[in-house]
Amino acid sequence: MSARILILNGPNLNLLGLREPEIYGADTLADIETRCRDRAERRGADLDFRQSNHEGALVDAIQAARGDRDVIILNAGAYTHTSVAILDALRAFEGRVIELHLSNTHRREEFRHHSYVSFRADGVIMGFGAPGYLMALDAACDMAEAA
Amino acid sequence: MSARILILNGPNLNLLGLREPEIYGADTLADIETRCRDRAERRGADLDFRQSNHEGALVDAIQAARGDRDVIILNAGAYTHTSVAILDALRAFEGRVIELHLSNTHRREEFRHHSYVSFRADGVIMGFGAPGYLMALDAACDMAEAA
Amino acid sequence: MSARILILNGPNLNLLGLREPEIYGADTLADIETRCRDRAERRGADLDFRQSNHEGALVDAIQAARGDRDVIILNAGAYTHTSVAILDALRAFEGRVIELHLSNTHRREEFRHHSYVSFRADGVIMGFGAPGYLMALDAACDMAEAA
Amino acid sequence: MSARILILNGPNLNLLGLREPEIYGADTLADIETRCRDRAERRGADLDFRQSNHEGALVDAIQAARGDRDVIILNAGAYTHTSVAILDALRAFEGRVIELHLSNTHRREEFRHHSYVSFRADGVIMGFGAPGYLMALDAACDMAEAA
Amino acid sequence: MSARILILNGPNLNLLGLREPEIYGADTLADIETRCRDRAERRGADLDFRQSNHEGALVDAIQAARGDRDVIILNAGAYTHTSVAILDALRAFEGRVIELHLSNTHRREEFRHHSYVSFRADGVIMGFGAPGYLMALDAACDMAEAA
Amino acid sequence: MSARILILNGPNLNLLGLREPEIYGADTLADIETRCRDRAERRGADLDFRQSNHEGALVDAIQAARGDRDVIILNAGAYTHTSVAILDALRAFEGRVIELHLSNTHRREEFRHHSYVSFRADGVIMGFGAPGYLMALDAACDMAEAA
Amino acid sequence: MSARILILNGPNLNLLGLREPEIYGADTLADIETRCRDRAERRGADLDFRQSNHEGALVDAIQAARGDRDVIILNAGAYTHTSVAILDALRAFEGRVIELHLSNTHRREEFRHHSYVSFRADGVIMGFGAPGYLMALDAACDMAEAA
Amino acid sequence: MSARILILNGPNLNLLGLREPEIYGADTLADIETRCRDRAERRGADLDFRQSNHEGALVDAIQAARGDRDVIILNAGAYTHTSVAILDALRAFEGRVIELHLSNTHRREEFRHHSYVSFRADGVIMGFGAPGYLMALDAACDMAEAA
Amino acid sequence: MSARILILNGPNLNLLGLREPEIYGADTLADIETRCRDRAERRGADLDFRQSNHEGALVDAIQAARGDRDVIILNAGAYTHTSVAILDALRAFEGRVIELHLSNTHRREEFRHHSYVSFRADGVIMGFGAPGYLMALDAACDMAEAA
Amino acid sequence: MSARILILNGPNLNLLGLREPEIYGADTLADIETRCRDRAERRGADLDFRQSNHEGALVDAIQAARGDRDVIILNAGAYTHTSVAILDALRAFEGRVIELHLSNTHRREEFRHHSYVSFRADGVIMGFGAPGYLMALDAACDMAEAA
Amino acid sequence: MSARILILNGPNLNLLGLREPEIYGADTLADIETRCRDRAERRGADLDFRQSNHEGALVDAIQAARGDRDVIILNAGAYTHTSVAILDALRAFEGRVIELHLSNTHRREEFRHHSYVSFRADGVIMGFGAPGYLMALDAACDMAEAA
Amino acid sequence: MSARILILNGPNLNLLGLREPEIYGADTLADIETRCRDRAERRGADLDFRQSNHEGALVDAIQAARGDRDVIILNAGAYTHTSVAILDALRAFEGRVIELHLSNTHRREEFRHHSYVSFRADGVIMGFGAPGYLMALDAACDMAEAA
Repeated sequence: MSARILILNGPNLNLLGLREPEIYGADTLADIETRCRDRAERRGADLDFRQSNHEGALVDAIQAARGDRDVIILNAGAYTHTSVAILDALRAFEGRVIELHLSNTHRREEFRHHSYVSFRADGVIMGFGAPGYLMALDAACDMAEAA
Repeated sequence: MSARILILNGPNLNLLGLREPEIYGADTLADIETRCRDRAERRGADLDFRQSNHEGALVDAIQAARGDRDVIILNAGAYTHTSVAILDALRAFEGRVIELHLSNTHRREEFRHHSYVSFRADGVIMGFGAPGYLMALDAACDMAEAA
Repeated sequence: MSARILILNGPNLNLLGLREPEIYGADTLADIETRCRDRAERRGADLDFRQSNHEGALVDAIQAARGDRDVIILNAGAYTHTSVAILDALRAFEGRVIELHLSNTHRREEFRHHSYVSFRADGVIMGFGAPGYLMALDAACDMAEAA
Repeated sequence: MSARILILNGPNLNLLGLREPEIYGADTLADIETRCRDRAERRGADLDFRQSNHEGALVDAIQAARGDRDVIILNAGAYTHTSVAILDALRAFEGRVIELHLSNTHRREEFRHHSYVSFRADGVIMGFGAPGYLMALDAACDMAEAA
Repeated sequence: MSARILILNGPNLNLLGLREPEIYGADTLADIETRCRDRAERRGADLDFRQSNHEGALVDAIQAARGDRDVIILNAGAYTHTSVAILDALRAFEGRVIELHLSNTHRREEFRHHSYVSFRADGVIMGFGAPGYLMALDAACDMAEAA
Repeated sequence: MSARILILNGPNLNLLGLREPEIYGADTLADIETRCRDRAERRGADLDFRQSNHEGALVDAIQAARGDRDVIILNAGAYTHTSVAILDALRAFEGRVIELHLSNTHRREEFRHHSYVSFRADGVIMGFGAPGYLMALDAACDMAEAA
Repeated sequence: MSARILILNGPNLNLLGLREPEIYGADTLADIETRCRDRAERRGADLDFRQSNHEGALVDAIQAARGDRDVIILNAGAYTHTSVAILDALRAFEGRVIELHLSNTHRREEFRHHSYVSFRADGVIMGFGAPGYLMALDAACDMAEAA
Repeated sequence: MSARILILNGPNLNLLGLREPEIYGADTLADIETRCRDRAERRGADLDFRQSNHEGALVDAIQAARGDRDVIILNAGAYTHTSVAILDALRAFEGRVIELHLSNTHRREEFRHHSYVSFRADGVIMGFGAPGYLMALDAACDMAEAA
Repeated sequence: MSARILILNGPNLNLLGLREPEIYGADTLADIETRCRDRAERRGADLDFRQSNHEGALVDAIQAARGDRDVIILNAGAYTHTSVAILDALRAFEGRVIELHLSNTHRREEFRHHSYVSFRADGVIMGFGAPGYLMALDAACDMAEAA
Repeated sequence: MSARILILNGPNLNLLGLREPEIYGADTLADIETRCRDRAERRGADLDFRQSNHEGALVDAIQAARGDRDVIILNAGAYTHTSVAILDALRAFEGRVIELHLSNTHRREEFRHHSYVSFRADGVIMGFGAPGYLMALDAACDMAEAA
Repeated sequence: MSARILILNGPNLNLLGLREPEIYGADTLADIETRCRDRAERRGADLDFRQSNHEGALVDAIQAARGDRDVIILNAGAYTHTSVAILDALRAFEGRVIELHLSNTHRREEFRHHSYVSFRADGVIMGFGAPGYLMALDAACDMAEAA
Repeated sequence: MSARILILNGPNLNLLGLREPEIYGADTLADIETRCRDRAERRGADLDFRQSNHEGALVDAIQAARGDRDVIILNAGAYTHTSVAILDALRAFEGRVIELHLSNTHRREEFRHHSYVSFRADGVIMGFGAPGYLMALDAACDMAEAA
């Protein structure tokens, strides 16, 4: 059975490739989605790829993944550091959770060192830029196949 | 005149009965709503019962209660601990406010010990599970009748 | 079998109705006891109602409730914030524990925001003034009957 | 070329003139918008004036200002103190940013002393009440003309 | 009418003159009481002088002073730093309160720098050793006469 | 009646235009004073413009403004963050107080995020560089005229 | 001359063997007293063995040991973490002091990591359960004999 | 030999009777000086009475008291909380030091709870208003006579 | 040219598969090394794989990698949280650094939430157990090939 | 079967009897080893006694004790307060662990109040000087015999 | 060209040799100045040597050194720990800055461990007593000659 | 008699001249050793010069200096901030200790502001780069000659 994976992106990730490229790289989110879809196809995985700037919409999406997805790959952006609501939604999800960040958040401002997502994440990948999405997707497929 | 009451539920409370039943119990939010409507009818109260995962939507709902509701019973879920916006909306409400939690938040993680809602709440009820809704509803009716 | 309940009041609650009525209301502790005894009778409950200014006496009373009471309703007053001894005594009690406060302690001084009692309390009721005693008593009866 | 300015208002500012007038004054947001539009006209500026209670909607609005506005005047209300997402959106904006508050937030509760918006704001104006909007608008026009 | 004054001494002050004389001096509490009684007589004051090692007993004594004493001079010893119960009892007292310490507590351990008594005390005298009792008594008589 | 205004500048502001121009700009304090005098003249205001490196001299100047000035515009420089004495002097001033900074102090070192002046300031303007003086002066004239 | 030793037990230790046996073991305090008396007899020591739930009573007992006991073995229970009064009483004692705990308090809640008793204790024994009493008693006898 | 005493007043105390009379009382510093001079005369003491708003001037005055004064009574005002320089000057003084405050600083803002002066003061008197000066003066005379 | 990679393991990782398998999994470090060597061979990479319990030895190994390795994959174990020396050695390394942990350290004790290695790491992978080594190795090869 | 015990000593304990004898006593580590060997012989125990100044060597020794020793008595010296690596090694040890200190570390500098070893230690003995080694050894033998 | 050096001394350093000689040594500031002048002469340096108890005067002196001195050697005494104004003045100085203390401030009170001067100082010398002045002077000459 | 001096260098100082030359300068440790040996010869001192990356080896070296060296000049590198073991070893050394750093550690990361070495160091020299070694060596010779 094919792995069912949700890649969920938080606030301002729709600006990828536009804002602060020295931190986040030149790839747009559409570029990344394309590469992820190619990789998912090659791995025979069913990929759902989304982005929202709204905390509530991210909570909705995580809730919708219950029973529908095997793994959530979550790049929660700024909400990583402030959202208990997202943490609670993740706790209600029965599958695996991978926390993803483009940059190594520990090398940035102090307030980015704390992650509510980490309290629930099984695995964490950060600092690899756009390629980190493929690393996470591969790991998610491996997890889903192993389960 | 009948007491006008708003029971407002925050993020992930729509999953009640599904997530972490050892903390939150087996009742769904629909079960609770039914029981609250029965009790409200018996008390002759006008009950509005809502839930949203969106902080902004909760702020909107509290604003809408101005002049329309006598008491707000607020189970703000995760936003209890992070939302100054909800606190400010509550401060603009002229009626009474009851803060409600299913679990005793002080027995959970450190970051759940602080409540912005408490800075405005007249009364607080927590740890009684689903029956806490009826306790809050009764107290709200008593408050409205006494006013 | 009738519910066996202990309502235990801590330091300065014997001054109720006398000190700072704008915070604690005009009812005396005797008024409250009378109303609680009426309610207990109506609920068929066996009520023990006590007050002491002495931390050690409160510990003694909680210990004495072991095997003798089904629920303790504890308004520990100032010891709420400072007494590990009371917390330890509560942990040795096998029944249910309801923490009660007349005022919402989170709207008062910073040092009243922390509660050792909360580390053990099943339920918490605060900010409802004297009527909170009856809410707690009803909840205690419900708990004992459900057990 | 006329200065293109966005005045963006956060949660509960739609209640201006209604809530806590001793802090925020008696002018409604509509009154303020009218005065700002008059002043903008006189300055030959193109003014966009908005309000939302939703953090995500504020992020959307700031993103939309990229390439479309020269200056953002942001009264982020309660999100000032809690939103990293808004800070990140502001960082992706190439123009100037003015942080605006009706009251002097440093004379209010401790948790209002910290501002994420300030990490990005070029200028800050606070405590002048409704007239602060015109001060900010004038400053924004000056900035845009100087650029 | 003669000033009615309570001098109340907390834990270990019964050991005065015996323990750590380099900090507390060589006078015993009995010596001090004698001198205070002499001074009270000369001032025409009605003096009650007590000591207890029990927090609850100090609370009892402060409560008993309600309506019976014009001024309480309180050397709460170690309970100065730990007792919210004594603070609450003092708050229920309508007269004046003078906080007294033999040593300057700010020159001792960190945990002696905080005083719950100070949150209620009208005046504070510390570091003058046994003569501080007479200073406090004189000040109390002045206060009572002025009232 | 003409507005009586004191613009008071603290330590190192006499070096303006010389030190760290990337933070403070190239204008000297004399340049700024000239522009302020022009503007004051146009507004019909009576302007007193001073600078001192001495905390005590600033306290003296604020005291001298009692009964003599309607508004103090204070750029306290480094004393903003360390001087309780200046705060106390401001509290003894009956007029309005505007806190002014050339840079946005919240984007600089942590120890510049706290302001004692803010505990008393009616309005705060920061980050606008030299033009901020004129903004403050205009606001002060408006305040004085409105009073 | 025989060693004169006081073993003093604080709040809730009278429940030993009853409360939380997985932490404190199945021995009652009476069992422990019996074993201590046997050991004392064998060592030729004069043993006083007491327990109280009252902080003031513990202070009284420590004061009474002045000049009467060579060593105090103190298991202050919950007062370990909160009682400055007991610390002060111990400081007035001229003999040796051994601090005793059944469990290793550093493996329990954060608030049990701090001990006021430790500021005065010569030796500390914790985590050995009931046998720790005999270890402490032996050490006390050795100390008294060596003195 | 007559006691040589310096009463040294810090910043803003020259405004006494003018600023915030509800905290500091209606007496001016001149009133207080007069009463102190009367009392000093009666006690046969040599009194030096000064005030300055300048931290450095207070340091100078304390240094000048070396070898010239027996006791310094210091009401350092705002510098109490911020001046290490005054503390160091006091440490170089061989006589006795009495710290004086008109109000009980512990009932005011948090930043007034810490006193550098207290690290050196032999005695502390606060909260007695203007009469505190006479209490301090009497105590100083007693100290000087006893030395 | 083949990628030159050092996989460096810190204290207690030689016990892998033996200690706390519920956290770290059942694979031994030898198992992991074998799989890494296979993967390196397939990727045409030159792999150096080491482990030491000695902080100094890890520093030596990192220094030796200067000019000799393209990427260091560092699982510093406990030294992650305490070693500034390792951080300094990494800063002297010109290549890329990947921080690796078997478990998600943010879900463990508080003192494991801080990482000195993160201040230098380009990428971080944690929580994937033994497979994380292969993820890191692949990423390292990609990095080296891209450089 | 004879109890197999490791007494492991950390940094600077080889200087025992030489450094700061007022804190650590006059016995050398060799003296202590001799006495321990005598006692072990009398108890029929197999004793391994070691010391190292190297954190890594202590980790190695603890690892080597796995399966080889029943009890580790660890006086980790300065590493007590800084070494997570030693804690992790102890966690991989299946036997009992006794933490030992010559002095009562809580009466020394603040940074000696925290112990990583305590997070794993079954029992703790401190402040008894050299005799503490024999107390620990006896307790270890008792533990091993009881197991 | 001869090195132009300013040695600037802060509050209470004029008491050198008089106050706390066990900390600061027996040399007076005049003794030190003499030795510095001798050394400066030998090095061919132009030495300015000053002291003030006034923070503002120190700021003035540092400002005056702009363009006039190559190196400032600053022993800011107590202002080291409290003066942002001095830090800002130093930042406006283009030459080198050496921070000097007679004692090792890190071995004294906690509040002396922080230095605002250090944020700007190129070099720091402390704990060498009076000879530290010559060390600093030599280093300053070397710096000026090397520039 | 010639001064016996140990210059001891900690982790990564063997990379001097190679790593981060903008912080540490271009001189290698060998260059520095050469210059120190020249200077020592000129001063007639007996110099031991060492470096190690191992904390334990530094402890060993300090212990070996007991009775063999008059002064230790210690540049402990990263261990400055983390090693209590080195502090304890220094405390067992009877001679003088000079703490040395190439850079001014207070201008670098927060975690480099704290030094365990400083708790024992007689003198501290930092921020002078390689020449600081000669300053320290001269000071050490002076100290040894004065002793």
